Order: sequence, then C-alpha cells, then structure tokens
Amino acid sequence: MEFYSSQINNLVEQLSRLPGIGAKSAQRIAFHILNMREDQAFALAGAITSAKKNVRCCKECCTYTDDELCPICRSPQRNHRQIMVVENPRDMAAYEKTGRYDGVYHVLHGAISPMAGIGPQDIKLSELMVRLQADVDEVIVATNKNLEGDTTATYISKLVKPLGIKVSRIASGVPAGGDLEYIDEVTLYRALEGRTDM
Amino acid sequence: MEFYSSQINNLVEQLSRLPGIGAKSAQRIAFHILNMREDQAFALAGAITSAKKNVRCCKECCTYTDDELCPICRSPQRNHRQIMVVENPRDMAAYEKTGRYDGVYHVLHGAISPMAGIGPQDIKLSELMVRLQADVDEVIVATNKNLEGDTTATYISKLVKPLGIKVSRIASGVPAGGDLEYIDEVTLYRALEGRTDM
Repeated sequence: MEFYSSQINNLVEQLSRLPGIGAKSAQRIAFHILNMREDQAFALAGAITSAKKNVRCCKECCTYTDDELCPICRSPQRNHRQIMVVENPRDMAAYEKTGRYDGVYHVLHGAISPMAGIGPQDIKLSELMVRLQADVDEVIVATNKNLEGDTTATYISKLVKPLGIKVSRIASGVPAGGDLEYIDEVTLYRALEGRTDM
Repeated sequence: MEFYSSQINNLVEQLSRLPGIGAKSAQRIAFHILNMREDQAFALAGAITSAKKNVRCCKECCTYTDDELCPICRSPQRNHRQIMVVENPRDMAAYEKTGRYDGVYHVLHGAISPMAGIGPQDIKLSELMVRLQADVDEVIVATNKNLEGDTTATYISKLVKPLGIKVSRIASGVPAGGDLEYIDEVTLYRALEGRTDM
C-alpha cells in the first residue's frame, strides 16, 4: 500500500497485530484515528502507554491491577477462604458480572497445554500453592471446559487434595436458554451425568 | 467493572470507542496489550501519536499524507488530467489496488447528506473546483452507490459540466462473480439499464 504515507502504513500495521483485527478493520480504525480530535487520539495512546507502564499482577491473586493488591483481594467483604481458580482476568470479570460469588480469585494466566508446550511451571500455580498455606476452605476450579482447562483442573486437584482442602469444579451442562436440539453431544452427556435431584 | 483497575478500565473504554470494537473485543484487546512486550505496546501508542501529529491532507487531492503532496499527486507517471472523486482515502486505496487506474484522485472526506446535516460546504468540494481551473479532461465520480453518494455525484456533475469538462460516473451492475439470484432488484435493474453492446 505505497499510496498511503509511511506513518499511516505503520499505524495500520500496528493495529492489525491486535487480536481480532484484520487488515480491513485496521485500515478503518487507522482512518478513524486520523479523523479523531487530537486530544482523543492522544488519550488513546496515553491509555495504552500508561496501562502498560502501571498495570502489574496482584500480589495475592495475580490478576491485573495498578496497586499491590486488586480491589477484590483488598476487600474485607469477600470470603478469603474460598478461592476460585480461573485462566485469565476476563474469566474473573465474567464471574464478577454474575454478582453471585463472594469469594476471591486466583488467575493462572494460562492453562496447562502439552501441545503448546505450556507446563505447570508456566502458569501461576506456585503462587496458588503459597496462598493455600493460609486458612482456605475450598478451591473452586473454574478453568475452561476444554482439553487444556480440564487437564489443568485435574492437575490442581491432585496438588490441592493432599492438603486437606476441598476442591470443586464448576458444572458442565446445558447453558441457560439452551435449546437441547442445538447442543452438542458432549455437553448433553455431561448434563446427564451431572443431573441433580429435584 | 470496578473489579478491574482504573487504568485497565480506561484502556478498555478508549478502545471500545473505535469503530467495530465492542465491549468484549475492547477487553480482549486491552488484555492482549497488557500481555505484549513493553516495546511493542509503546510502538503501538507511538504510531497513534505520530500519525495523528504528522499526517495531514495532501494539498492537491486532500487524501491523508505526511508530506505536502501525496505520492500519487507527486508522481509524473500519473495522468493529472483525469481526476477520480472518491468519498474517503479507503475508497482511493480500493481503486489503487485494482492497479488499472493511472489518473489522480480527489478525496471529499464525506458525502452530501441532508439527513445528517452534511452540506456541500462540509466536504472538500471547493478544493476540487480550484483544481479544475488547471487543464482537466475528465472528472470520474466514484462516490458510493447509495443515496448520499448519488446526491453528491449529481451535485458535482452540475458544478463541473458548465466548465466544459467531461463528467462520468462509475458503472452500477452485478458484481464480478455475482450470482443473479442473490442480487437485489435495484442492482439488477441498474445492470439492465447500463447494458453494453457485445
């Protein structure tokens, strides 16, 4: 695209490296940025730089935060004896949105995946084990319901159970509003296996 | 989302203002940026700032460029007597990709839209009229084939014809590879109207 200037090309290229942004969207966003008011464009650039500079992992649960501790780990209203283990901060955000969980979290920043060469030492597992030295009643494993998530869940269960701490896994089944005929077989089977008394 | 830090919230909010990026994608991109190497994140922020600071409109055709003139307006290989009028730089890029046009362009940065309160004075029309004082053989109106684009085309035609300069409009019809049964009626009708001898 030599008909654009090098500055525009560079911006388009940088944007197209972001997840879910292809060449066309990158172009569209680049021109949108050029059309923005200057202060708005600078605010966007500033937000990137400043988030990258200041955001770090919570000392306790390893989610992203500006402070030593994230708001949840700091909160006295949360039950610090119940730890939900998730793969990434977005999963934590998803559970927070339910508004029904008052324990704390532990963010692994990944899942064990022998295929991708990600072992237990590559995710925040040792940080979890350190936390379990305090009084903890339950570890709820809320990793994804796929091969990597299930592998990670099994691994965690094997580490935690010997400590005498209860380990649970979130349920698998038909999603709310789910129409049985459109649900895959594995989910249907799991929903049957996990049936509860009425 | 008070469970994220304010820096992350700010980044997510800034990103979600970009076109085609919803709340979920903004979150995903924000965490991707936090996971990026620091130099990569700063390169992205730098590209935004520097493009916004340095990119301006070409003195001749009004497309975005770093210099006084864009590469196309600077080029002696292009036919400067043939001007294709487009709505925005992306449309210009689209025609450049065909590799079949050797004239120059004029970028309006919009189209006349009484509904949206955009009049002829809000787009780069006066800049086009200034250019037509030089020797120009043809003005090709390549605005979009919608209400705004067609209104703009008619308006330009009325301005340019009295100057004794040829004005043409890009053809409307069935797109290449188009399957007639899936094409809308307006397009089919226009394709019929615009039929050419074989």
